[in-house]
Amino acid sequence: MVPHLVTALSGPLATLEARLIALTPQIERWFRLEWQEHTPPFYSSVALRNAGFKLAAVDTNLFPSGFNHLDDAMLPLAVQAATSAIEKYCPDAKNLLLIPETNLSDPLYFANVLRLAAILRQTGLTVRFGSIDPELKQPTTHLLPDGRQLIVEPLVRRGRRVGLTDFDPCTILLNNDLSQGSPIILKGLVEQVLLPPLHAGWAARRKTAHFSAYSDVVKSFAKFVEIDPWLLTPYFASVEQTDFQDSQGQSLLAQRVDTLLQKIRTKYKKYGISNVPFVVLKTDTESDASGTISVKEGAELMQLNEEKRRQLITLASGSNSAIPVMIQEGVPTIETVDTHVAEPVVYLVDKFVVGGFYRFNAQPQNEQDMQLPGADFRQLPFAKPCNMPDCGEDTTAAPNRFYAYGVVARLAALAASLELERTDPDQSQYG
Amino acid sequence: MVPHLVTALSGPLATLEARLIALTPQIERWFRLEWQEHTPPFYSSVALRNAGFKLAAVDTNLFPSGFNHLDDAMLPLAVQAATSAIEKYCPDAKNLLLIPETNLSDPLYFANVLRLAAILRQTGLTVRFGSIDPELKQPTTHLLPDGRQLIVEPLVRRGRRVGLTDFDPCTILLNNDLSQGSPIILKGLVEQVLLPPLHAGWAARRKTAHFSAYSDVVKSFAKFVEIDPWLLTPYFASVEQTDFQDSQGQSLLAQRVDTLLQKIRTKYKKYGISNVPFVVLKTDTESDASGTISVKEGAELMQLNEEKRRQLITLASGSNSAIPVMIQEGVPTIETVDTHVAEPVVYLVDKFVVGGFYRFNAQPQNEQDMQLPGADFRQLPFAKPCNMPDCGEDTTAAPNRFYAYGVVARLAALAASLELERTDPDQSQYG
Repeated sequence: MVPHLVTALSGPLATLEARLIALTPQIERWFRLEWQEHTPPFYSSVALRNAGFKLAAVDTNLFPSGFNHLDDAMLPLAVQAATSAIEKYCPDAKNLLLIPETNLSDPLYFANVLRLAAILRQTGLTVRFGSIDPELKQPTTHLLPDGRQLIVEPLVRRGRRVGLTDFDPCTILLNNDLSQGSPIILKGLVEQVLLPPLHAGWAARRKTAHFSAYSDVVKSFAKFVEIDPWLLTPYFASVEQTDFQDSQGQSLLAQRVDTLLQKIRTKYKKYGISNVPFVVLKTDTESDASGTISVKEGAELMQLNEEKRRQLITLASGSNSAIPVMIQEGVPTIETVDTHVAEPVVYLVDKFVVGGFYRFNAQPQNEQDMQLPGADFRQLPFAKPCNMPDCGEDTTAAPNRFYAYGVVARLAALAASLELERTDPDQSQYG
Repeated sequence: MVPHLVTALSGPLATLEARLIALTPQIERWFRLEWQEHTPPFYSSVALRNAGFKLAAVDTNLFPSGFNHLDDAMLPLAVQAATSAIEKYCPDAKNLLLIPETNLSDPLYFANVLRLAAILRQTGLTVRFGSIDPELKQPTTHLLPDGRQLIVEPLVRRGRRVGLTDFDPCTILLNNDLSQGSPIILKGLVEQVLLPPLHAGWAARRKTAHFSAYSDVVKSFAKFVEIDPWLLTPYFASVEQTDFQDSQGQSLLAQRVDTLLQKIRTKYKKYGISNVPFVVLKTDTESDASGTISVKEGAELMQLNEEKRRQLITLASGSNSAIPVMIQEGVPTIETVDTHVAEPVVYLVDKFVVGGFYRFNAQPQNEQDMQLPGADFRQLPFAKPCNMPDCGEDTTAAPNRFYAYGVVARLAALAASLELERTDPDQSQYG
């Protein structure tokens, strides 16, 4: 199961990777000092794009599913990292309440929840499952085809604590991205630790807030390692309350798209990159489950065919035609698994990289369309961990690539910490 | 490279292992709470004996070599654990001074030092090497046959700090067991962290102090998991200042040996074990480099043949005929690698198990003689990590065995913490 990597990397990235590897002790110390200032998210997964000429985080998930896709050999890393994290939040923790998505019909997601629970049990916790679905009134047993089961129980609120009928947790771990809103039953919990906090949920979170923090983090890191921050950052812009049905809204969006494309073109020219730049449109307020749209010029938005228009409406979730949109620089990917375009996804628990995999679309398409809704995503676990760069060995060898992935993913996790501090409704603790 | 394990385990151990696995979350929490009270050694390696009917730690090394024998796949665990440890001792640490044994002529030991340095660099430290050999006046380059090199430099004392000419470390890590005494140049360091502390060195350490702490730790753990502590502990006794040349000394030793053998026989009878009990004589004050002697009855000591007598003198290091001796219950091992008797050695960094291997003597001998000086030791890395017990799967499967190893090794590491607290010349910090 060794992924096929495009190893004939051109220009800046090989240089960049060599630089990261040469500076390993300094970079690790840089992170050590940063993590003294900022609390890492309990867990996260970071999707990267490796364009050869640049390597950037394009999505940071604070409610990662997919732990089931990590290689078994990397689980001990997750256990060790979770042990460190639990020690920090609730050193004498006995009980942990895991709140998964309400829909457990996908066996892969189900397997993710079981895997997560196995990791957490290994840190010395009794783990049970609660649902934020107010319709759930009784403990419900879900079964996997392989016979494994999972009992999800209704939440019970007791004053400023939440739990199950006969279960009082110290820590509540959300694996539900709260895209349906922050449930009242989880509000105002004072004596318990809720991870991640409510304002990390999609009811409140903005992608642009994350990428704004990411830009700041990368700016500081890039200065430290003396590189152009653009090599690690996708440019982005935000457009508030765009009505896609309205020609004025479309025109404003098209204009912003062209401005961003122009910025990218300038960089492409500087680095002698012959690719045609593109941008990706994402809702600013929700996970990408409903898909993204990529365009190579603003005018495309004015001349959308029926299919693309439907896509645009889907992107708006159908709930509201006026939604804030993030325009993000499209970072092409040169990595492939077999003949499929592949995107590395790196998993972190606390500040530690614990594994990752290549996500690829089994239907052959070009790289811009990887995020189409309904795409047949497959996963291929990384063959090596991300924290051993094999200093002194061939810098184009796979372990080094993974080290660079681990660095960029940690920059994104650090950005998430910063983002959650900035967006925390209770600012008193950062004074 | 999958070790051949004797899987036909009889009686108590299979029961014991099943019990440890069933109680995993509780055991992990037990350790979590214990580690809040006690600081784990920076690193340690624990030799275990698996008798089938019992599983016990028989030796705890606080200056572990052999990191080179760990499977590459487990290194990320060591890096992660070392990162947690460094953060605790010296969060802004930049420089670490590693003090290896003065004799680097063994390429295996040399490889261990390089491996350790690689792990530490990965935590964000600049690592350099210092020697406590007062004869070393100039930086000396050592070369491995494969071309890797290591520069060892003389220590430079500056007030209450120690370092190299142009290197001021925050942390000093000893990989030298100080069996030649505590060097003055390392005494009274106040502003720097010396790991492990001087009183962990063999100039001051007593095996019986360790096993006394180990007995206490196991007693508490055994009560928690409701088992007989003897299933995890070797009985031991200490005999002070024995003169092996003197018949009165020999007779006292023989008497103590018989008393211990009688205790073991009682347990063997209780558990229906048909083995012939034996005890192992070790110096109480030094590492086992000079060998150990095993006997099945006290009278053997009175009738030693010339070879055994030479061994006894060697054990006394030739330096002094009157030395304190530890008599330790011999725990036979039922594990083999190919046809060789094998002893698991588990490695820890901080409170985390980071790997291990089977140590076996390539010259076929019976298990009692594994510790003969000059034995041709080989290593076979564990095929699986120790922190995933695979709950619910076949309890006799290999990963479970490794989990049990990890539990016992951590009991020994916890005992080392307790031991170092009890033997610390500065007791004020434990008030």
